[in-house]
Amino acid sequence: MSSPELKSAAMLLIGDEILSGRTRDANLSHIAQELGQIGIAMREARIVPDIDVEIINAVNELRARYDYVFTTGGIGPTHDDITADCIARAFGVGIGPHPEAVRRLEAHYEAAQVEFNAARQRMTRIPDGAELIDNPVSAAPGFRMENVFVMAGIPKIMQAMLAGVLPQLAGGPAITSVSVTGNVPEGTIADAMEALQAQNPEISIGLYPYYAAGQAGVSVVLRGTDPDQLARLADTVADHITSIGGSIVERPSRDE
Amino acid sequence: MSSPELKSAAMLLIGDEILSGRTRDANLSHIAQELGQIGIAMREARIVPDIDVEIINAVNELRARYDYVFTTGGIGPTHDDITADCIARAFGVGIGPHPEAVRRLEAHYEAAQVEFNAARQRMTRIPDGAELIDNPVSAAPGFRMENVFVMAGIPKIMQAMLAGVLPQLAGGPAITSVSVTGNVPEGTIADAMEALQAQNPEISIGLYPYYAAGQAGVSVVLRGTDPDQLARLADTVADHITSIGGSIVERPSRDE
Repeated sequence: MSSPELKSAAMLLIGDEILSGRTRDANLSHIAQELGQIGIAMREARIVPDIDVEIINAVNELRARYDYVFTTGGIGPTHDDITADCIARAFGVGIGPHPEAVRRLEAHYEAAQVEFNAARQRMTRIPDGAELIDNPVSAAPGFRMENVFVMAGIPKIMQAMLAGVLPQLAGGPAITSVSVTGNVPEGTIADAMEALQAQNPEISIGLYPYYAAGQAGVSVVLRGTDPDQLARLADTVADHITSIGGSIVERPSRDE
Repeated sequence: MSSPELKSAAMLLIGDEILSGRTRDANLSHIAQELGQIGIAMREARIVPDIDVEIINAVNELRARYDYVFTTGGIGPTHDDITADCIARAFGVGIGPHPEAVRRLEAHYEAAQVEFNAARQRMTRIPDGAELIDNPVSAAPGFRMENVFVMAGIPKIMQAMLAGVLPQLAGGPAITSVSVTGNVPEGTIADAMEALQAQNPEISIGLYPYYAAGQAGVSVVLRGTDPDQLARLADTVADHITSIGGSIVERPSRDE
């Protein structure tokens, strides 16, 4: 599926904890789905460690290639939170305390009766020229620098930030998907699905096999921007599966 | 943490289903943890769609930069399974049916009384010069091409393939981690942890905040190759947290 109407996005996940395997990312799927609904297709994601040159190079490559770039992680108060400085260096601009960020965090910590110490003051450092992204959860803002959106890594905070950002974005028609799951091996329907894909290049047809209780099955996922077309093609897929002796089933919630 | 003894790895996750947000990757954390145990540090991960040029470029960038590259996804029988062809193009070699792969799949489908049709025969196509990676689950092999290991995307199959690959890899001392969780906000201990990191550059100290039941807490994760040192530093972290009035707690299993 590569409609010229769709905008493109990439995501940069910043943090040793994901690369080490300690934490599983929970942000990519949320952001990709939210963007899809406003016609922005996620085209690439990268996960890099908390190392400045890695972050800078990845930001510069991605922002040149895609309409929008979303980063998550590395904007807290600790020594391994280096995203804001890296973004400033990637854009070749200065960085310093942003007056509005200072005001929000002062108010936040005063209300919480928590010391606004030097570590917490780091969270007011925003690259010159960036616009703040609201953080309704814990006050410390994200920011937008041209086509790069810098957000928190904690899912609850990232989701709140993204909700504020989405209305600013220009997208295209919503990308939706339908799926049909049959209790047949993917290899049995592969040729028919390849032909269906060739006849309908404007949609994306993906086959995702699974095994459950010793039985091979496959989910056929159709993605595109025309819901009527997707519904018609889903019927075609279901008819094909039943025509070869299979049944339409619920996909097991978890692969064995 | 950047010990010269450690080997480096990158991972390339191939598939529209992860980028679209439909499926959450389950392979990175497993591979990163398994590699860490044999002294290979995961340094970068990329997720790309089922588009040939994207896969080829990513493979060529990653294999030049890291000791090992692991790919998952795109080696099944369907039209969107293009990884093997992309690897051949990335290395500039030919591709064709591999006699041993043909033998294994013929035997597998004969035993299962399933037709070994043209789609399934695609899974015998292996780049010239590659070595097969055993698939004890569903027969269709992965392969190794120089420092690139091409594996299935289905977690159960990937894990079985990786188990066969690990003994081939040269690594370094095992990377282990310990974590200490306290019911204090990360901003309160940030300065002390920065100082501890500065004194111990050979380990990695990461701070991962959370909120549970309205209370801010933080997990301090120490990673390195010397278990005794990690244990001593964990005690230092715990002492610091209690010295400022906090308590050591279990990290909630899930952020709110």
